[in-house]
Amino acid sequence: MSTRKILYLPRTSLSRDILSVRARALLDGLGTVVWNETDRDLTQDELAELLPGAAAVITSWGAPALTPDLLAAADSLRIVGHAAGTVKKLMPPEGYARGIVVLSAAPVIADAVAEYTLWAMLSVQRNLYYYQTLMKQGRGWKGTGDNSGHSLYGKRVGLVSASMVGRRVIHLLAPFGCDIAVYDPYLSEAESRQLGVRKASLEKIFGESDIVSIHAPSTPETKRMIGAAHFQALRDGSLLINTARTWVLDSGALLAELRRGRIRAVLDVFDQEPLLPNDPLRDLDNVFLTPHISGHSLETRRRLVEAIVEDMARFFAGEPPRLAVAPERLSIMA
Amino acid sequence: MSTRKILYLPRTSLSRDILSVRARALLDGLGTVVWNETDRDLTQDELAELLPGAAAVITSWGAPALTPDLLAAADSLRIVGHAAGTVKKLMPPEGYARGIVVLSAAPVIADAVAEYTLWAMLSVQRNLYYYQTLMKQGRGWKGTGDNSGHSLYGKRVGLVSASMVGRRVIHLLAPFGCDIAVYDPYLSEAESRQLGVRKASLEKIFGESDIVSIHAPSTPETKRMIGAAHFQALRDGSLLINTARTWVLDSGALLAELRRGRIRAVLDVFDQEPLLPNDPLRDLDNVFLTPHISGHSLETRRRLVEAIVEDMARFFAGEPPRLAVAPERLSIMA
Repeated sequence: MSTRKILYLPRTSLSRDILSVRARALLDGLGTVVWNETDRDLTQDELAELLPGAAAVITSWGAPALTPDLLAAADSLRIVGHAAGTVKKLMPPEGYARGIVVLSAAPVIADAVAEYTLWAMLSVQRNLYYYQTLMKQGRGWKGTGDNSGHSLYGKRVGLVSASMVGRRVIHLLAPFGCDIAVYDPYLSEAESRQLGVRKASLEKIFGESDIVSIHAPSTPETKRMIGAAHFQALRDGSLLINTARTWVLDSGALLAELRRGRIRAVLDVFDQEPLLPNDPLRDLDNVFLTPHISGHSLETRRRLVEAIVEDMARFFAGEPPRLAVAPERLSIMA
Repeated sequence: MSTRKILYLPRTSLSRDILSVRARALLDGLGTVVWNETDRDLTQDELAELLPGAAAVITSWGAPALTPDLLAAADSLRIVGHAAGTVKKLMPPEGYARGIVVLSAAPVIADAVAEYTLWAMLSVQRNLYYYQTLMKQGRGWKGTGDNSGHSLYGKRVGLVSASMVGRRVIHLLAPFGCDIAVYDPYLSEAESRQLGVRKASLEKIFGESDIVSIHAPSTPETKRMIGAAHFQALRDGSLLINTARTWVLDSGALLAELRRGRIRAVLDVFDQEPLLPNDPLRDLDNVFLTPHISGHSLETRRRLVEAIVEDMARFFAGEPPRLAVAPERLSIMA
């Protein structure tokens, strides 16, 4: 039996969602697992006691960041697998410099976000929330034909960033015959051709699309890169979708434009979360809201630890891991 | 200039939706058009007066059926183009026997129905109406994570009929990696392989799918072919979608099953339309309703006459039309 020491940090209530039976079995097969048996996140001190001798650590939402002090205690650490999205705050440069591999389950989450984005497009294009609500209210039918919505087929879709999610949206959109424009300074012409999209400036994306969907990472470069001028440039009746972060835009300017009723929006992310009960966004008929759930389906949550452990197994077998985060890309990724 | 006489029958209020500027220009280029200038459907007598000498007739919803008497007056008729869906009641066998070609714009409508079907799958899988409504009501966020829904990716989807709409749904589902089973006695093994689906019995479709979507035509053969046993066989938490007609199922049995709360449904069609204000379906939280709009988007409506006129132009140029209905298929199509 392997005596490889593996720390598993997610609290028990979270593990009920993200740790499948299969993941647990795989993990037990990889070494001697030290489980977090509590329903709270470990403190830095507790973690410092557990780290010596550990070859691998599995983290998720709520895990303490690996400070340089903690890293000093992590004398045998070779790999950290984060069963959640962004790993930006997880590992300091010292860790990467030591060659510690960091895995992120962001690709698992990206699938769910891309499906949500397709739903948002189909739903708002056709006014389907309106029809559904009308029918539920026991009114409905008479005169409803006047509110026919739009098809998705053949529409001009503008994507802000060919990020992991952006690329999956492109994939799901393929059969819909849309004209897809992408703003992404890191996307090469060759790659854009391969994806079947065309590159465009942020200004063109906002000025010419029927639907704009934001998938940009939160980086110093993207901070508030979308503002009032972009929102004002949106075509009448166009649709804005944000499943990324509000970091990339001026939320006040967006609210002001939405209040004019000229455009529509589907928003899953907000400056302050949970969204306040009296937030004005809740009262706008042209705005559709969900509580930051675009990345969460039962299946994607259930896959989180599994995907990480499968990749760790590859790593320990000497194969290249698939979910490894390249430190040089940290500054431009989500 | 051509002196070909063409009758255009849709009433003016309908034409505002379905007759594009381009369609009108194309039509004028095809011959001398006799327009219905009224906002009502013509009577059989009025039509009988207009038919002599006409080479082509364009119809849509509300057009009088071409009775054998009318056909006797249609001494020069070569083609009838129906800018709507089903043409079953439009042309009697005598017309087909005389070689009159019948065009149907059903493929245009099918695109919109297929998009709606994808929306229904994505929306209900992820509980998105629930989340949207919660957020609109100013509640929402706290505890909402407990209602995480399912991904569409990789699900078992059962389609009842590889009809025109069914095939488009298969096309749109392609990137979602679903396992698609189709019940269709007229689908060959070779065709099913080509479509990337597998054939299955109606019983298997209902017993094994996560999502069942009905796309079967209303024919003597399909009348009430789906009943209580099928609904009872549906897996707990599975989703039933009907955008076809209620002809194919036992609505009472469906209501009874829906009341048990074990399955969910998205219904766009009803035994009686408009659906009565007090219909019990409106009160069920696991049922989502729309007022028979799955085939109607602004674009598909706008395309209806255009598609027909383009095809008529092909016909008069001696090319094979693409929207022609084969009379021998009338008995098995929608």
